Amino acid sequence: MEHVIFPPRMYNFLWTIRNSPLEKKILDCGAGGNYPPLAIFHQHGFETHGIDISDKQIEKATTFGQKHGIDLNIVKGNMCKLEYRDESFSYVFSQNSIFHLIKADTTSAMMEMKRVLRKEGFMYVNFLSVNDQGCGAGEKAGPGEWIAPEHGEPTLHSFYEDNEPDSFFDNMDILLKTKSSMEFENGEYRMVHIEYIAQKK
Amino acid sequence: MEHVIFPPRMYNFLWTIRNSPLEKKILDCGAGGNYPPLAIFHQHGFETHGIDISDKQIEKATTFGQKHGIDLNIVKGNMCKLEYRDESFSYVFSQNSIFHLIKADTTSAMMEMKRVLRKEGFMYVNFLSVNDQGCGAGEKAGPGEWIAPEHGEPTLHSFYEDNEPDSFFDNMDILLKTKSSMEFENGEYRMVHIEYIAQKK
Repeated sequence: MEHVIFPPRMYNFLWTIRNSPLEKKILDCGAGGNYPPLAIFHQHGFETHGIDISDKQIEKATTFGQKHGIDLNIVKGNMCKLEYRDESFSYVFSQNSIFHLIKADTTSAMMEMKRVLRKEGFMYVNFLSVNDQGCGAGEKAGPGEWIAPEHGEPTLHSFYEDNEPDSFFDNMDILLKTKSSMEFENGEYRMVHIEYIAQKK
Repeated sequence: MEHVIFPPRMYNFLWTIRNSPLEKKILDCGAGGNYPPLAIFHQHGFETHGIDISDKQIEKATTFGQKHGIDLNIVKGNMCKLEYRDESFSYVFSQNSIFHLIKADTTSAMMEMKRVLRKEGFMYVNFLSVNDQGCGAGEKAGPGEWIAPEHGEPTLHSFYEDNEPDSFFDNMDILLKTKSSMEFENGEYRMVHIEYIAQKK
């Protein structure tokens, strides 16, 4: 595992919680894929739990785990209805996932993620900005919701105004909020994310 | 070294160059400090070279290296006048450093970093945006240049408009350009960086 390089998005969270005294127990919502973020947390001594709604993404993460000899404990699940007790985790993490839900379901998912997070626990979640290249492309599904092909399949993305997701973090302190605009190929393509790291009161 | 957590800024670069076939030889300009980025590159098999103008920052990096049993090869030097031959490195990296120079010196430093980079080599460098909290605070030293106390000492910072640093990358392809705004403490403090990853033609 030592020399695997991961996409950079999760490191802000690891850095923020590096001195936290809480039990190292984390839930990742949308945990699958070729580079499962839980692998980094496992490497840093966390007890990892993950859910993903997609069998294909779980399979990719399982392949990664087998290759590196680690069990990340990722099971099928729906982030709008988590099968965990209240305050089960010190850390809840969700990266590049919640914006695949329509906004009504996002509210449910955020409530669920807060429910399973212990008091003083930390959460990471990122959203897509209305400034993202994808906003306005494809078929409109609702306000700020667009369906367009991704990897050959029609895929929903929800896009947010700069302060729109703030309201999801009631009863939490927002420790870090980042808006990052990434341009690739000399400005031809632009991704814009809004990230939050928050602590439950 | 395995469980050291670093500030997140360098990971975009590691991810971008992960499949590069070039010799793993890197120069970091402004390489000192408590968390020397070269440690991550060392961990990933790079031959590391670093310079820093500050004895104090070099000492901090040396302490880190001793603690973790690695020699990062960081020496005293000025990024405006590099003591290396043309095209000596496959990778040149400079994080949170070049914006401590006045803009005239920044032009020199960028020319020097490009000079010592081989053809098809990769460069990472970040700047401060005019949207950063620090822009306009303290004493004005020149257009976009401000001197204000930092860690108790008067410190110069240069701030850039969104596309102002583009001109430094002539004869290079800009592969990734990121503008990231980070808010801390519920919006009380705001850092805004503009990062570039570019490849020499």
